[in-house]
Amino acid sequence: MAVLLSVTGFDPSRWWEALHNAAPERKIVVDPAAAGDEPIDYAVVWKQPPGLLATLPHLKAVFSLGAGVDHILADRDLPDVPIIRIVADDLKERMSEYVVWRVLDHFRRGRAYRQQQMQKIWHERMQPAAREITVGIMGLGVLGQDAAEKLRVMGFEVTGWSRREKTVEGVTTFAGNAGLPAFLESADILVVLLPLTADTRGIIDATLLAGLRRETPLGGPVLINAGRGALQDEAAILEALDSDRLMEASLDVFTVEPLPSDSRLWIHPKVFVTPHAAALSDPDALAPIVMRQIAAHERGEALNNLVDRSAGY
Amino acid sequence: MAVLLSVTGFDPSRWWEALHNAAPERKIVVDPAAAGDEPIDYAVVWKQPPGLLATLPHLKAVFSLGAGVDHILADRDLPDVPIIRIVADDLKERMSEYVVWRVLDHFRRGRAYRQQQMQKIWHERMQPAAREITVGIMGLGVLGQDAAEKLRVMGFEVTGWSRREKTVEGVTTFAGNAGLPAFLESADILVVLLPLTADTRGIIDATLLAGLRRETPLGGPVLINAGRGALQDEAAILEALDSDRLMEASLDVFTVEPLPSDSRLWIHPKVFVTPHAAALSDPDALAPIVMRQIAAHERGEALNNLVDRSAGY
Repeated sequence: MAVLLSVTGFDPSRWWEALHNAAPERKIVVDPAAAGDEPIDYAVVWKQPPGLLATLPHLKAVFSLGAGVDHILADRDLPDVPIIRIVADDLKERMSEYVVWRVLDHFRRGRAYRQQQMQKIWHERMQPAAREITVGIMGLGVLGQDAAEKLRVMGFEVTGWSRREKTVEGVTTFAGNAGLPAFLESADILVVLLPLTADTRGIIDATLLAGLRRETPLGGPVLINAGRGALQDEAAILEALDSDRLMEASLDVFTVEPLPSDSRLWIHPKVFVTPHAAALSDPDALAPIVMRQIAAHERGEALNNLVDRSAGY
Repeated sequence: MAVLLSVTGFDPSRWWEALHNAAPERKIVVDPAAAGDEPIDYAVVWKQPPGLLATLPHLKAVFSLGAGVDHILADRDLPDVPIIRIVADDLKERMSEYVVWRVLDHFRRGRAYRQQQMQKIWHERMQPAAREITVGIMGLGVLGQDAAEKLRVMGFEVTGWSRREKTVEGVTTFAGNAGLPAFLESADILVVLLPLTADTRGIIDATLLAGLRRETPLGGPVLINAGRGALQDEAAILEALDSDRLMEASLDVFTVEPLPSDSRLWIHPKVFVTPHAAALSDPDALAPIVMRQIAAHERGEALNNLVDRSAGY
């Protein structure tokens, strides 16, 4: 039995090594032909070449190297086998670091103080208390719930929105299209951690941005997107920033990655750009989780963290 | 009975209003002469003019408008009455926001990503996990302990140093001069929240900086000072930054405030300057605490949060 590691966009060698170290007895191949006579029972993938998985007759399950699975489901010839997302403390903690970091930087006026420093201006800015600020989180999965908990520890009010109704301790939740207007109205800082599905594609558009509170204790609403670039309409975000409808934005993901050098997001003074680095998938932390799940499945145990293909996440 | 509000460096009117609103029946004066025949039993001060308090024969207690009291004790003619520091959730929460914000910004490579954005460089930086980083906190009072707890929630290892031995849950603690070398060696990011006393004046000097770990998962140690400017030797900090002995620094306090425009700290690319804004003393949040303590004392109750004048904090 062999495991196929199939990625595009980066060098698979660190992942190969980590998977190998996690289970040295398994054959891990990056090219199906290298498996020889051994059947390929499992695939571990990031943006696998379309059609590749359909050529593996023995395939029992597909594992994603990240929290999202849209890169797997984009394959129109995807065989009908279970798809498993990675759920790992490491990934969750890194994402919450990014969210709390960006919320605090906007909330504590990092941009204004960096500008003042460049001009040698000693001036204390008006600073609301965290309890006066509501952070609204779109997407209440494992990542959204962990970020909510940490933001609450920091003193923020937290609201949340998800497609299906959810109950999260200490968080006022809203659900579905019907709940969206009231959710948007609740948020001074909007954090997007949604999966990319047919329902969520392009959801951060002019209409959504127009639904955010106009007056906030910080002077205007803030957008933070660490979900997927295809969730956002970048022209609408730029227009909202230019018209002061949005105060500032932190974007980690973009409709085209790497962000093209002619994108105005790179040079907009109100935008903070990171290169899809909010939550690095650390092979050493994540590979053992995948290999343990494969071993458990081989022993006949059920797979955890299965993706609902009809919902898209 | 009247209360004297005596501040220098800023307009006292917001404090006057907040104290008045908290106890409208009390006479609050900013000039002792305005009390007329009424004795001044209490003073609420920030850097009171030296000698002023000694002219008040009825004075029963002095309240500080901030967490520190060095600005009160600097008065050589200070009468021998109890001095009370403010202990308030609002102040503590604001300070912890600043500490977590600055730790995350250094840890998540804010400076590097801002530079990359200016150059339109799409490049994911090596990012250790929070559990690989130790934040060392100097000063384990109310502020240091709250910051420690929030940093632990974010996943960091936390160590602490104080003059006298302290036990703080989940924090490895060190004490006194004997404990300082091992403490410094433990820290990847050093956070200073010490009170300014005869013992701590100038403590952040070349010797202390040379005692920090040389190799850290971030590439070098980081200094964050939100205590008092007089704790730090600014020439030594600049020298440590120039020689790459220190990787970066966030400074909220300075030996001379406002920071003079010819200070190289303003323009050093590795330094983030804020104008003594880490924890704003919000009159509306703090005045009721002071006035409640005065009322309790008038009823014969003991005063809380008394300063130990011999220790200086």
